[in-house]
Amino acid sequence: MTSPSLPVDHAGLAVLSNQECLLRLRAAPLGRIAFMSGGDPVILPVNHGMDGDTIVFRTNPGSKLFAADNELSVSFEIDGSDPDQRSGWSVVVSGVATRVEDPADIARLNLLGIEPWANVVERMYWVRIRTYMLTGRQVVHAGEL
Amino acid sequence: MTSPSLPVDHAGLAVLSNQECLLRLRAAPLGRIAFMSGGDPVILPVNHGMDGDTIVFRTNPGSKLFAADNELSVSFEIDGSDPDQRSGWSVVVSGVATRVEDPADIARLNLLGIEPWANVVERMYWVRIRTYMLTGRQVVHAGEL
Repeated sequence: MTSPSLPVDHAGLAVLSNQECLLRLRAAPLGRIAFMSGGDPVILPVNHGMDGDTIVFRTNPGSKLFAADNELSVSFEIDGSDPDQRSGWSVVVSGVATRVEDPADIARLNLLGIEPWANVVERMYWVRIRTYMLTGRQVVHAGEL
Repeated sequence: MTSPSLPVDHAGLAVLSNQECLLRLRAAPLGRIAFMSGGDPVILPVNHGMDGDTIVFRTNPGSKLFAADNELSVSFEIDGSDPDQRSGWSVVVSGVATRVEDPADIARLNLLGIEPWANVVERMYWVRIRTYMLTGRQVVHAGEL
């Protein structure tokens, strides 16, 4: 998926374009969000979707909705790996969590078909991550440069 | 992998035992660490290993080594999913990042066979996550309860 001509960062990882990052965010069913909760960082997996170029997900009252109501800084990550090839990639979004409150937005999001896998407890609320930075990296091996 | 008799948390997810969490941490080649960097949370993927019951990984000078040298609180996550079954699980560790400095420890870790997939730039340093909380969750569907 990666051309050897991709730029490489200081850690020796190939840099994915913004366009490629957005494509992968659209294709991934599952990501992880990190934010501060009770003074410590926490990572939680979420089934996300994309509304235009922003990440959205459903949740119920709890730490993720608290983060959104307080517009906390968050990091969101997706990745993929091939252990046999010792290869992997990741896309990391920096942004701010916000609760979606506009009824028209909520109606549109409800049509996206994003249903959490964990469905024993209904997840009533939508959270949007307003992106301010998007980075994508892919492992390249020395022979590929 | 999950018995229907597992306890279920407030979000409707089955709770994995500590023993099960440690087994999955040992089996997973890739996890994600989150910590505060420059005032914002960031998630980064790492190839980790286990040294006893603690998570260890190699790194080079950068934000992860800075987190270790400052003994920052971190969250570490692994997960697995089966999109067709709308099923998934995650193990989340809360802990403190520390740089491994004891030469005997470093010599032992160097024998663990944990080689980062990204090998264009050598990763010289070991970071250990001192665990203070370990939680594991698995999606269960209403029919399985």
